[in-house]
Amino acid sequence: MTSKKKFTESNSKYSVGLTTASTIELANNSSPFQLEFGERLTSMIVEYETYGTLSKNKSNVILIEHALSGDAHAAGWDSNEQAKHSDRMWRKKKPGWWDTMIGPGKPIDTNKYYVICSNVLGSCYGTTGPKSINPTTGKFYGLSFPIVTISDWVRVQKLLLEKLGIENLYAIIGGSLGGQQALEWALRYPELVERCVILASSAKLSTQGLAFNAVGRHSIMSDPAFKNGNYYNDTAPISGLAVARMIAHITYLSEEGMNKKFGRRLQDKNKLQHGFDIEFEVESYLDYQGKAFVERFDANSYLYITRAMDYYDAAEIWGEGNLIEACKKIKSNVLIASFSSDWLYTPTQSKELARAIVRAGNAVTFADVKSPYGRDAFLVETKSVGRLLKGFLTGGEKR
Amino acid sequence: MTSKKKFTESNSKYSVGLTTASTIELANNSSPFQLEFGERLTSMIVEYETYGTLSKNKSNVILIEHALSGDAHAAGWDSNEQAKHSDRMWRKKKPGWWDTMIGPGKPIDTNKYYVICSNVLGSCYGTTGPKSINPTTGKFYGLSFPIVTISDWVRVQKLLLEKLGIENLYAIIGGSLGGQQALEWALRYPELVERCVILASSAKLSTQGLAFNAVGRHSIMSDPAFKNGNYYNDTAPISGLAVARMIAHITYLSEEGMNKKFGRRLQDKNKLQHGFDIEFEVESYLDYQGKAFVERFDANSYLYITRAMDYYDAAEIWGEGNLIEACKKIKSNVLIASFSSDWLYTPTQSKELARAIVRAGNAVTFADVKSPYGRDAFLVETKSVGRLLKGFLTGGEKR
Repeated sequence: MTSKKKFTESNSKYSVGLTTASTIELANNSSPFQLEFGERLTSMIVEYETYGTLSKNKSNVILIEHALSGDAHAAGWDSNEQAKHSDRMWRKKKPGWWDTMIGPGKPIDTNKYYVICSNVLGSCYGTTGPKSINPTTGKFYGLSFPIVTISDWVRVQKLLLEKLGIENLYAIIGGSLGGQQALEWALRYPELVERCVILASSAKLSTQGLAFNAVGRHSIMSDPAFKNGNYYNDTAPISGLAVARMIAHITYLSEEGMNKKFGRRLQDKNKLQHGFDIEFEVESYLDYQGKAFVERFDANSYLYITRAMDYYDAAEIWGEGNLIEACKKIKSNVLIASFSSDWLYTPTQSKELARAIVRAGNAVTFADVKSPYGRDAFLVETKSVGRLLKGFLTGGEKR
Repeated sequence: MTSKKKFTESNSKYSVGLTTASTIELANNSSPFQLEFGERLTSMIVEYETYGTLSKNKSNVILIEHALSGDAHAAGWDSNEQAKHSDRMWRKKKPGWWDTMIGPGKPIDTNKYYVICSNVLGSCYGTTGPKSINPTTGKFYGLSFPIVTISDWVRVQKLLLEKLGIENLYAIIGGSLGGQQALEWALRYPELVERCVILASSAKLSTQGLAFNAVGRHSIMSDPAFKNGNYYNDTAPISGLAVARMIAHITYLSEEGMNKKFGRRLQDKNKLQHGFDIEFEVESYLDYQGKAFVERFDANSYLYITRAMDYYDAAEIWGEGNLIEACKKIKSNVLIASFSSDWLYTPTQSKELARAIVRAGNAVTFADVKSPYGRDAFLVETKSVGRLLKGFLTGGEKR
């Protein structure tokens, strides 16, 4: 989706340039991190990147939340020639996952804002997760890593900000699973968030969403290479993970967008193969997506992150099941955008959240962006999303 | 979806009663069957069932077309205590897959019509397929079985009718993949079909449909137990097949229907498991669907039948890409019904087909049935579908 040109001086004007991820220790033996479901982490490293300059009064901080397979590298070009994680070599080929939005003069303007993006707990991109070494055993965690939640992620991010000496957020912004983190921020730390942007997201995952996640995990866990999560010294369950990714990818696109992009075109225009190898372009595309993903993502992390998605239900956590009650906690201005062809985090769900916030007596800007790109739209509809972000970020102060 | 009560005399009034499948040889060495893509079958057995009585002038025949995982056992209760195929023991537990529609006094009234349903070529329910013995090698076909198409299926059914001495169809009726067979009948043998009923179907599979099929096959073929299709003397690739079925099952339902049925309810009301075992009811449901399916279906057949779905494109076959041109061939009265929440064979696609038939100058009855049950609606919306079928079947003669 993003440009594949390498970063050069000539395109540096609107880029944050070369970036290096930082890591920070946020828990250790003397100061463990207490998780929502009761377990404790006695070691927790978090990876994050920052772009722009922190203002003197520290009032220009924007926190960016990544989605399922994202990482801390949201903008610019990774400068790390000796990537610590081989998983991260793929980064070298393209700019950060939201480079279109973040940079000097871009909608999330690094000339004005200090932008932070951190990798979530349980992921495989530098923050502690199932692929990390469990300090008490000296072995990989695997499935002994505790279950994490979106609330945990947000609390970790709060801890990160504290360590960086930051108290308030000018804005919190996220799309898809990132949007749920943004919402959780506005609910959990209402006093600290001035603006909250929730794109292509919802207050909870739908039944269909639970179902797709379940099948993805089932595919991973029934791969014989999975070995109950203990595969780090061996072959990873790449077949199962590839299928999980292929399923998920279909949900990121829409029939409209897929039809536009691939239709029923054959991979080899000149002849049918009459078999089970790749025949249609869309098969080739999915096959590529599966293969590329297993080179960069950890199967156990996929389990943990999708489970965190499953569990999140803002109404349950903050309103005893009542979303309006929950939304009464919010004090920030909120921008919610849905995308017309997003069929998993649907416009209806976004509207439901927006309506609940309004009924709770808070301000919301709601936009349903017409787009054929499904959930991916929050990444690829750069014009519409850019305009919405720019307007909202330069707009009114917190009430 | 259908009743799980065993057949008893007390519920015999509206049932076709106990049924026994027949098999018939439709190709042999001296009379091979020529397939669309060029290969020949020198042995072909077809399994079928019949219900009702053939009228003297043989003018009361209705042919029923089954969908992906269906079989010839469309109505009544299987009487075969010694099922030839262990795959078929599951049949004992419930009546035929469309028992709600077929029987004495039912919409497809066996007091009036002689109803035939045959199993498609490539399936695993009695008709020759990859699980059959290749007569030239004495071994299981596996992937050496030739690729089959919907046109092949329809030509096999035509051959079956010829052998049974039947020349014309009072009606051809099918849903989903069965609907495409019904359409192909009306296009290929326009003179022989008086009425054609196409439910929850379309003239071709959408890009999203191709994508879901591709992931299902990928899951099967990347299961180590698959062994390039040569698993019949060993463990079948049940993990891969279960995932394929789970994916497909999500596409048979709708978010609306799933939400109604399962919502986000937990399997164990009293506590969260905090892990990757079954947590939500919808996970349990999908898990069950996967497990039940692998006990009754053959993975290779799944590949062949989904590929036949992929390849079918009525406009390409009959109109050089133009659906209206193709539809000019149709001479039967056509009933098309879509279901409002069917998101894979959408109402839009059904309407497109109906419109093309109208523009081609033919008669169509079109109904978009409001239903939360997704594609499954053609099986479970018995009242609406029954009314439509009854009205259409007792209605006008062929023009």
